[in-house]
Amino acid sequence: MPYVNIKITREGASAEQKARLIQGATQLLVDVLGKNPATTVVVIDEVETDNWGIGGEAVSQRRKKGL
Amino acid sequence: MPYVNIKITREGASAEQKARLIQGATQLLVDVLGKNPATTVVVIDEVETDNWGIGGEAVSQRRKKGL
Amino acid sequence: MPYVNIKITREGASAEQKARLIQGATQLLVDVLGKNPATTVVVIDEVETDNWGIGGEAVSQRRKKGL
Amino acid sequence: MPYVNIKITREGASAEQKARLIQGATQLLVDVLGKNPATTVVVIDEVETDNWGIGGEAVSQRRKKGL
Amino acid sequence: MPYVNIKITREGASAEQKARLIQGATQLLVDVLGKNPATTVVVIDEVETDNWGIGGEAVSQRRKKGL
Amino acid sequence: MPYVNIKITREGASAEQKARLIQGATQLLVDVLGKNPATTVVVIDEVETDNWGIGGEAVSQRRKKGL
Repeated sequence: MPYVNIKITREGASAEQKARLIQGATQLLVDVLGKNPATTVVVIDEVETDNWGIGGEAVSQRRKKGL
Repeated sequence: MPYVNIKITREGASAEQKARLIQGATQLLVDVLGKNPATTVVVIDEVETDNWGIGGEAVSQRRKKGL
Repeated sequence: MPYVNIKITREGASAEQKARLIQGATQLLVDVLGKNPATTVVVIDEVETDNWGIGGEAVSQRRKKGL
Repeated sequence: MPYVNIKITREGASAEQKARLIQGATQLLVDVLGKNPATTVVVIDEVETDNWGIGGEAVSQRRKKGL
Repeated sequence: MPYVNIKITREGASAEQKARLIQGATQLLVDVLGKNPATTVVVIDEVETDNWGIGGEAVSQRRKKGL
Repeated sequence: MPYVNIKITREGASAEQKARLIQGATQLLVDVLGKNPATTVVVIDEVETDNWGIGGEAVSQRRKKGL
């Protein structure tokens, strides 16, 4: 029954990588807390780099600086 | 003043259906808790089926299996 | 499989009222989009009135003014 | 280390405006609580006007009425 | 820089178990997407069983029925 | 009509500081995007240090190490 939300920048994660995130997060809840995987929900949000900030600066700006 | 967030998979909900979700969720808060509809906010997120997992598997995979 | 999050101020909602919110939100997704209630999740967050602002002001302050 | 999520309707906010939101929200946490800007994350979600409701009505409908 | 939010019912997860969730979720992002663990944030929300619903029913009610 | 969610660790923010966060975040949306403050909502979540992780480690553990 757990709900996991993973937010990452939209920078080309593949369907296969997202499937691994879903599988891994679900298994983590099984392993640590014995949760039922059948009702464990994982939602991945991919956020544009203009819309994600860290250090007071958009990731799109940071990428231009090579950060 | 309540805030309601509804997350569904992006599988063709129409504007009319989304309007009904907004109206219904707002009315629910009025009916149960007497909240003021004028300041009740409803946000609907439509999530790609590659990005939504249940049972450790992406919905896009489940759909291919007819689930 | 939908996920609904309802945020309200913590001002005495009863377990019975919260049960009605859960039931009503689940039914709404069934009625409008034909979703499966068995995997529909509803999470209610009750937020302290010091921690909820509208109009630039905490609800706790607004309540003192009779708003 | 704070995490700030800003949700707005998708109605043409520019990259420059979003950069100002990121900078301003980060600075607010520094000014009020002395938080470290280097680990302060800001995520902006732009929501379609069909998917955002207030007063029981989608913003797309309200815009047609001049609201 | 990812942000992971894990929501579970408040049913006695220990500090040690929560530490494992934090470690595991962070490692998952490193393994699958090569993310930097130093700026990966994990937030765990523990939700009262009256406030979590599935199948249209609060978990607190389901627990009374032995579900 | 914007919605702002600020998540911080629960480490003694006062009601006055939270009022400043609410006021500042609301003003930011007015200044940058011309949003109406009357319908701008700000919700602050204070998260236990056992439940917040960065760098793969709970903040409660980091605090013990003087981080």
